[in-house]
Amino acid sequence: MTKTVYVLNGPNLNLLGTREPEIYGHDTLDDLAVRCRETGARLGLAVEFRQSNHEGTLVDWIHEARGIASAVIVNAGAYTHTSIALLDALRAFAGLKVELHLSNPAAREEFLHHSYVALGSDAVIAGLGPIGYEVALTAVARKLEG
Amino acid sequence: MTKTVYVLNGPNLNLLGTREPEIYGHDTLDDLAVRCRETGARLGLAVEFRQSNHEGTLVDWIHEARGIASAVIVNAGAYTHTSIALLDALRAFAGLKVELHLSNPAAREEFLHHSYVALGSDAVIAGLGPIGYEVALTAVARKLEG
Amino acid sequence: MTKTVYVLNGPNLNLLGTREPEIYGHDTLDDLAVRCRETGARLGLAVEFRQSNHEGTLVDWIHEARGIASAVIVNAGAYTHTSIALLDALRAFAGLKVELHLSNPAAREEFLHHSYVALGSDAVIAGLGPIGYEVALTAVARKLEG
Amino acid sequence: MTKTVYVLNGPNLNLLGTREPEIYGHDTLDDLAVRCRETGARLGLAVEFRQSNHEGTLVDWIHEARGIASAVIVNAGAYTHTSIALLDALRAFAGLKVELHLSNPAAREEFLHHSYVALGSDAVIAGLGPIGYEVALTAVARKLEG
Amino acid sequence: MTKTVYVLNGPNLNLLGTREPEIYGHDTLDDLAVRCRETGARLGLAVEFRQSNHEGTLVDWIHEARGIASAVIVNAGAYTHTSIALLDALRAFAGLKVELHLSNPAAREEFLHHSYVALGSDAVIAGLGPIGYEVALTAVARKLEG
Amino acid sequence: MTKTVYVLNGPNLNLLGTREPEIYGHDTLDDLAVRCRETGARLGLAVEFRQSNHEGTLVDWIHEARGIASAVIVNAGAYTHTSIALLDALRAFAGLKVELHLSNPAAREEFLHHSYVALGSDAVIAGLGPIGYEVALTAVARKLEG
Amino acid sequence: MTKTVYVLNGPNLNLLGTREPEIYGHDTLDDLAVRCRETGARLGLAVEFRQSNHEGTLVDWIHEARGIASAVIVNAGAYTHTSIALLDALRAFAGLKVELHLSNPAAREEFLHHSYVALGSDAVIAGLGPIGYEVALTAVARKLEG
Amino acid sequence: MTKTVYVLNGPNLNLLGTREPEIYGHDTLDDLAVRCRETGARLGLAVEFRQSNHEGTLVDWIHEARGIASAVIVNAGAYTHTSIALLDALRAFAGLKVELHLSNPAAREEFLHHSYVALGSDAVIAGLGPIGYEVALTAVARKLEG
Amino acid sequence: MTKTVYVLNGPNLNLLGTREPEIYGHDTLDDLAVRCRETGARLGLAVEFRQSNHEGTLVDWIHEARGIASAVIVNAGAYTHTSIALLDALRAFAGLKVELHLSNPAAREEFLHHSYVALGSDAVIAGLGPIGYEVALTAVARKLEG
Amino acid sequence: MTKTVYVLNGPNLNLLGTREPEIYGHDTLDDLAVRCRETGARLGLAVEFRQSNHEGTLVDWIHEARGIASAVIVNAGAYTHTSIALLDALRAFAGLKVELHLSNPAAREEFLHHSYVALGSDAVIAGLGPIGYEVALTAVARKLEG
Amino acid sequence: MTKTVYVLNGPNLNLLGTREPEIYGHDTLDDLAVRCRETGARLGLAVEFRQSNHEGTLVDWIHEARGIASAVIVNAGAYTHTSIALLDALRAFAGLKVELHLSNPAAREEFLHHSYVALGSDAVIAGLGPIGYEVALTAVARKLEG
Amino acid sequence: MTKTVYVLNGPNLNLLGTREPEIYGHDTLDDLAVRCRETGARLGLAVEFRQSNHEGTLVDWIHEARGIASAVIVNAGAYTHTSIALLDALRAFAGLKVELHLSNPAAREEFLHHSYVALGSDAVIAGLGPIGYEVALTAVARKLEG
Repeated sequence: MTKTVYVLNGPNLNLLGTREPEIYGHDTLDDLAVRCRETGARLGLAVEFRQSNHEGTLVDWIHEARGIASAVIVNAGAYTHTSIALLDALRAFAGLKVELHLSNPAAREEFLHHSYVALGSDAVIAGLGPIGYEVALTAVARKLEG
Repeated sequence: MTKTVYVLNGPNLNLLGTREPEIYGHDTLDDLAVRCRETGARLGLAVEFRQSNHEGTLVDWIHEARGIASAVIVNAGAYTHTSIALLDALRAFAGLKVELHLSNPAAREEFLHHSYVALGSDAVIAGLGPIGYEVALTAVARKLEG
Repeated sequence: MTKTVYVLNGPNLNLLGTREPEIYGHDTLDDLAVRCRETGARLGLAVEFRQSNHEGTLVDWIHEARGIASAVIVNAGAYTHTSIALLDALRAFAGLKVELHLSNPAAREEFLHHSYVALGSDAVIAGLGPIGYEVALTAVARKLEG
Repeated sequence: MTKTVYVLNGPNLNLLGTREPEIYGHDTLDDLAVRCRETGARLGLAVEFRQSNHEGTLVDWIHEARGIASAVIVNAGAYTHTSIALLDALRAFAGLKVELHLSNPAAREEFLHHSYVALGSDAVIAGLGPIGYEVALTAVARKLEG
Repeated sequence: MTKTVYVLNGPNLNLLGTREPEIYGHDTLDDLAVRCRETGARLGLAVEFRQSNHEGTLVDWIHEARGIASAVIVNAGAYTHTSIALLDALRAFAGLKVELHLSNPAAREEFLHHSYVALGSDAVIAGLGPIGYEVALTAVARKLEG
Repeated sequence: MTKTVYVLNGPNLNLLGTREPEIYGHDTLDDLAVRCRETGARLGLAVEFRQSNHEGTLVDWIHEARGIASAVIVNAGAYTHTSIALLDALRAFAGLKVELHLSNPAAREEFLHHSYVALGSDAVIAGLGPIGYEVALTAVARKLEG
Repeated sequence: MTKTVYVLNGPNLNLLGTREPEIYGHDTLDDLAVRCRETGARLGLAVEFRQSNHEGTLVDWIHEARGIASAVIVNAGAYTHTSIALLDALRAFAGLKVELHLSNPAAREEFLHHSYVALGSDAVIAGLGPIGYEVALTAVARKLEG
Repeated sequence: MTKTVYVLNGPNLNLLGTREPEIYGHDTLDDLAVRCRETGARLGLAVEFRQSNHEGTLVDWIHEARGIASAVIVNAGAYTHTSIALLDALRAFAGLKVELHLSNPAAREEFLHHSYVALGSDAVIAGLGPIGYEVALTAVARKLEG
Repeated sequence: MTKTVYVLNGPNLNLLGTREPEIYGHDTLDDLAVRCRETGARLGLAVEFRQSNHEGTLVDWIHEARGIASAVIVNAGAYTHTSIALLDALRAFAGLKVELHLSNPAAREEFLHHSYVALGSDAVIAGLGPIGYEVALTAVARKLEG
Repeated sequence: MTKTVYVLNGPNLNLLGTREPEIYGHDTLDDLAVRCRETGARLGLAVEFRQSNHEGTLVDWIHEARGIASAVIVNAGAYTHTSIALLDALRAFAGLKVELHLSNPAAREEFLHHSYVALGSDAVIAGLGPIGYEVALTAVARKLEG
Repeated sequence: MTKTVYVLNGPNLNLLGTREPEIYGHDTLDDLAVRCRETGARLGLAVEFRQSNHEGTLVDWIHEARGIASAVIVNAGAYTHTSIALLDALRAFAGLKVELHLSNPAAREEFLHHSYVALGSDAVIAGLGPIGYEVALTAVARKLEG
Repeated sequence: MTKTVYVLNGPNLNLLGTREPEIYGHDTLDDLAVRCRETGARLGLAVEFRQSNHEGTLVDWIHEARGIASAVIVNAGAYTHTSIALLDALRAFAGLKVELHLSNPAAREEFLHHSYVALGSDAVIAGLGPIGYEVALTAVARKLEG
C-alpha cells in the first residue's frame, strides 16, 4: 500500500529560486514540489508538499498528518531555531520525522546552531541543497521498509 | 572515471553490532564496510572504509585523502564534539565533506549538541542508523554529478 | 452581574485526549470546554473558551478581551516560553491574568523553565492536569470577589 | 477516612499581616492557619499547619509527614530557590506535593525564577495571595479524589 | 517617479492610542497611518502602512514588498527580539531597511536588548515615539536620494 | 529663543573622511560640523559640535552642557560599549539625549551589541551614515517642539 | 534616649581568635562583644551582640530586632552569599542595615563576590578586620543622628 | 593511641534504608553507624557517628571536632552543593577531611556537579553506596599512618 | 609625624550637591573636601583631596601618592567597574587602600556589582553617603595606628 | 575464580615519582604497578596495570577489557576532563567502573571540575595520593562480592 | 630609507624598574627607550618611544602614526583588555601592528585573557619581559623586509 | 656548551606550504626545519624539530625533552585549545616554554581564543608566519643567556 509522506516547508522557502540562485539553483519551490512527487512516485510514496510562513499553520499540518502520514520531512526554516510549538507537534506525531535544511546551519551563525525541531526528530539531513529533498525521501523509504 | 570516497569512522564505532544491537542492529562494522563498498560500486564510487580510536590517525587519513578522494564521509564519533584538529584537517580538504552520525546528537545530551566537524563540513546526515551510510554515499554521488 | 472570563489555549492543546491519555485523561478539549462553562456557570462567570495554534490569534483574542472580560486564563502551551508578543498583550490587559499549565514546566526540560507569560500574569497554576482549569476558575472567582 | 495535609511555611512567613498589609492583607499567619483548618474541615481534610525559619526543621517536618499525610503544601519562601535539601526531602515523600507562593516569583527578581522545590513538586500555585492556601487545599482535595 | 515605502507594524501596535496615552499620545494607529501617508506625499514617497499580530503575515508582507518597494520601515514590536523568520525575510529584501521602535528597547528589560531585526536592517531609529515614523520616512527619503 | 544642542563625537571619529571613504563618504568631521551648524540654523538650533578621543573630556562636555543645552546628541564611538562614566554623565543631564551611530552596531560584532550610552539616552539613531546627524537634529527639533 | 543596635554574626565567626590569629588578631568573639558594647556605650548605643551558625536563628534575630532596634549590623559570614532568607528578613526590617565583613570578599574567590545581604542593606563595611565593628558602630551612630 | 574520626551525615540521610532500598540496601543509618564503629574498632579508630538535617548543626559539629578528631568524613547530602558555611568550617579544621557520597553526584543532575565541600576536603569517595563508609574509614586509617 | 592620605574622586563626583540633593545632600564636593581636611586634621592626617573625570589622571595621582602617602581612599565612580588600569595602579601602591562609594553598588544594577578597584583594595566602605568620607578617614587612622 | 581488574592510567602519569615527590612520594608508576598487583593478589584479583599518553590507546584498552575484566579503574589524568571518547568506551563496558585521581580535582582549577569519565563511572575516589590505588582495589573487591 | 616604528606603552608602564624588580629587572622605562632606539638603529628603524596612562592619548598617538610609521608596537597594559577605542584606532592604521606584553596574560587572571588589542593586531609577543621589546623590533624589521 | 631546543609542531602543520601558500608562503615544514636548524646553529642552539598529528605523541616528546632540552617551542595547532594533557606535560618541564602560532588566534574564531598551552608557557609568539620560528629561537637564545 502506498504510504504518505508530508514534506513541510517553513518561512521564506517560498522565495526559493528567486534568491541567491548561484547557491540554491534556479528551481522554484514549485519545481521542487514536482520533483518530490516524482521521486515519491518512484519510491512508492505519496508526497504531500506544502509551504507556509506561519508557525501555527505548520503546527496545524503536522496535526493533520497524524493518522494519515507515515513520515514527515520538515524544513522549518527559521522556526527550526525558535519554535517549541513545532517541537511539541512533532513529539505528538508517532511516525518517522526527518529534519531537513538546504544549507548546514551548524556551520553558520551561532543562533542557528540550536534546533528545537531536532529535539523532536529521528533524523537530520542538511547542507545538500535541493538534492536534500530527494535524499530525504530515499532515506524515508529505506527506513519505512526496514 | 571512478571517483574515490573515504568513509572514516571514529572512536568506539569498532564496537558496532556488539553494543545495543536492538538499536543499531546486529551488523558489525565489517558488515557495514562490505555494504558501503557494494553501494559505492553500484554508484560508481570506490569506497575506502576505515576506523580508528585515535584522533591523530583520523587527521592523518583526511590528509591522505587530499588529492586522492573526491569526498570524505566522516562519522567522527565523540571527536565530533571535541576535535578542532579534525576541523582543521577537513578545512584543508578541498572536496566534498559529509558529517555522518548513526543517532541524532542534537536530540541527546547537551555536550553532544556542538560539532566541530560540522564547522568544516558541507553536509550533515544523522539519525538514520546504519542506513545512513548508504544514504550518505547516494548523496555524495548525486552531489559529485551535479 | 455575570463577569466574563476568557480561557485561552495555545498550540497543541487541541490534541488533548488523543495524546498520552494515561497522563492527561481521555477528555478532549471540547469536553474540557463544556466542564469550564459548567464550572463558570456555577461560579457566576461566563466562560469564553478558545484554542489556537497561532501566536497572532492568541494575541488578537487577548486584545478582544479588553473591555469585555474581567479575567483571562492563559494556557499558552509552547508560546509560554517563546512569545514576548503574548507578554505585551497581557500587559495591555487591565484585568486579572492567570497562567495555566497541565503539567509543571519547572520540573521538565531547561528551556521550559522560563516563562514570558508569567512576567505578565498575576498568578500561576500548574501541574494539576485538567482539574487545573476548574481550580483556576475557582481562584479567579475568589479574586474577583475580594 | 479523613486524609491529612501538611501545610508548611518557610522563612519570614511568620511576619504575615505585619508587613506590607496593603499587599498581603491584615491577616496574620495564625488567622491563615485557622482558615486553612476550616477549609480543610469542609473538604474532609485534616490540616497540619506549621511555620519555621529553619531549613532543617522544614526537612524534618516533610520526613514526619511520610506515612501520615496524603499531601504536603509547601510555601518554602526563600528556601524555594536555594534548598536542594528540601528538594531531596520532597522526592522522598510519596504523596501529592504542591508548591505554593503568595506572590508570583516568576515575575520578580531573576534569582527568584529558579525553584528547587518545583523540581520535587507535582503542582505549583502562585500569586493568589492568602487565597492561594484555600485554592491549594481545594486542588489537593480534588486530586486526592481523582 | 514616486517610490514606495512599506511601513510594517507588528504585534500589539494596533492598541496605540488606547494604552498609556500619557506616554504615547492619543493618536491611534489609524491617525499615524494618515500622518505617514501625508509625510510620504510631501517627500514624494507612496506609503503602504500595515499592522498585524501575526509573524507569518509580516513575513508575507516583506516578501510582497520585493520588487515593489524601495524601502521597508519595520516596527516589529515583540517579534523584533524573537523572530529569525523576519530576519531571513529582511535579508531577502534588496532595498533599504529601517528598524523602528516607539520606545528605546536598549534602556528596558534585558530580553529586549537583542534584535534579530537589527541583524537584517541598515538603520535603527528608536525612542522618538510617534514622531519616529516621520523621522524614519525623512531618513528613507534622504537615503534614497543619496 | 534659540535652543542649544551639543553634538559630541567620541574616539576615532576625527578620522572621518580619511578612512573607508567608499563607506562613509569623503566628508571630514569638519565638513560634518559645518553641515550640522547649517542644519541647526535652519531648525532654529545653535549647534555646539565637538570631538575627543578622551572619555574624560566627553564626560566634562556633558557636564558643561547642563544648564546650557536643551539636548545632547552623542556619537560616543567605542566608548558607547565600555563607558559607565558616560552613562552616569548622561543620567545627570536633564534634557533630551540622543545616541547616534554612523553604522548599525547591532549588526556588527557581538561586543558592540551592548550600549551603556543607550541606558542613559531617550532615543537612538544608527546606520544612516553622515545623514544621521541631520536626521538626529531634525528629530531633536521635533521633540523640543512637542 | 538610648537607641539599640543588633550586631549579628553568622557561621564560623565563633572561631575568631583561634583561627589564623596572625591575620585576625588574638581577640575572641567575646572580646569583640565587650569592645562593641564599650564603643556603643561611648556612642550612646545599646549593643545586642550575638552569634549563630544557624541561618534560621539569624533570621529569627532580625525579626526580633523589628520594633526594638534602630539598626542592625550583620556579618553573615558564608550566609552572605547563599541566603535569600536573610535578604527577605532584612527587607522586612525598617531601620538602618549595615553589612559587615572582616576581610574584603570582593578580592577573594569568585563565589564570594555576590552578596544577598547587600541587596537588603543600606551600607557595606569590609576588610577592616575587628576594627570594622567599631567603625560600623560609629557609622551607625552618625547616620542615626543625621 | 586511638585516634578519633567524626563521620557526619547531612540532610535526608536519616531516611536511609526506608527509601529506594533496591538501590541503597535495607540497612538503616543506625545499622551503618554500628558497622562504622566496628570497622573503626578494627582499624584502631574511635568513630563518632552523627546525622542532622540542619546546616548549622553540621557546622557546630565540625567545630567540635577541632582538637578532638584526627579526621572528619562528611557526607553532607544536599548541603554539599549549597553550603559555603560548611566549606568555611572544614577549612578551619586542621586534620584530614574526606567528602563522602553514596551515589556519584557527577553523573547526576547538573546542579549536583559543583561541591563546596570538595573545596575544603583532601579527598573524595563517591558512588560506592554504604560500602563507601568502610572504604572511607580504611582510607583515613591508611592516611593517618602514612 | 603627620601621615598623608590621598582622597581621590572619579567621574561625575564633581556634580555632588547639584544632583539629587534629596539623596546626597546639598554639600558640594568642595564642602566635602573642606570637611575631609578638617576631619584629617583632627585625626593627625594630612588630606590631599582631588577629583577628575579622566581615568588616566586618577592613575597618575595614585602613582604620585607612592612614597608620599600612607593611604589612598578611592571613590572611583564608574571607573570602579571598568578600569583594570586603576587596579594595576593600586596594586603598585604599597600603603593602605580603601574603596569608597556614596551609595551601595551591590544593591543597584547588575553591571555595578563587579569592582576592579576592590581587587586592589584592602577595605571597602559603601552606602553611607557623604558621611562615608569621614568614616573612611577614621578607619584609615585606626588602621595606621594598629 | 580470580576476577580481573584493569587499572588504566592516562597522560603524564608515567612521570610519577619524578615530579613533585614531596607531594606524590618517590614511588614510580612501576612501583605502583607492583603494589597494585600485590594488593590484587591479596584480594583475589588479577590486576592488569597500564599507562598511555594516547587517548585512543586508552579507548582501545577499555574495549579490550570487555569480556575479560570485571572492573576497570581509570585514572585518565587530563583526558578525564576532555574526552567524550573515553566516556563512550566506559558506557560500552558492562562491569564496574571506578574513576580515580591522585589529587582532588574539585579543589583545583575550574577547568578540572567537570569530568566526562565520571558520567560513565559508578564510583569516584580522589585525593588519596598513591594510596588511592589500593583503596580503589579494596572497594572493587568489596563491590564485586556484594 | 629608514622606516619609523612607534613603540607605545600604556598605563602603569612608567613604573617599570621601580616595581617588582626581581621579576622585571631594574631597568626603567627610560632605559628601555634607550635600548629600543639602539636596537632600532641597528635594524635600520627609527623608534618613536612613548608612554601614557591616558587611553585617549594612546588613541591620539596611533592616529599620529598613520602616514608616518610603518609599524606600531603596542604594550597597552590594562587597556589591552578594556579598550575598544584602541582596537578601532589600530584597525584604522594600515601598517604592521604588534601587541606586546612583558608577562603572559593568558596565564594570569581570567579578566586578562581577552584582548581587544589582539583583534586589531597582526602579531602578539608576550611573556619575554623587557627582552620582548627587542624581539618585537627584530620581528618588525624581518616582516617589513619580507 | 650547546643547549638543545625542542621545536614541536602539532596537527595539520605537516600541510605547511601546500595549503594557502599566498598566506603562509611556499616553504614546507621540511624547509622550515632546515631554517630552524640553521638559525639554531647561528645562535649556538641544537634544534630538535618534529611534527605529529597525535596529541599523545606530543606529550611523549615533551617528556623526552625533560633533562635534555633547555627550552621547548610548541606550535600545538588545534591542540592548543583542547589539550589539558599538553598543559600538564609542559608544567612538568622545568625549562623555558614558548607557545608559538603562525597566525594570531586571538583575532580569529571564538573557540581559538582560549589556550591551555598558554597556561603552561612562559611566553607566546603569534601571528608572524614562518618568521615566527626564527623569532622564537632568537628569543629563546636571549632568555637562556639572561
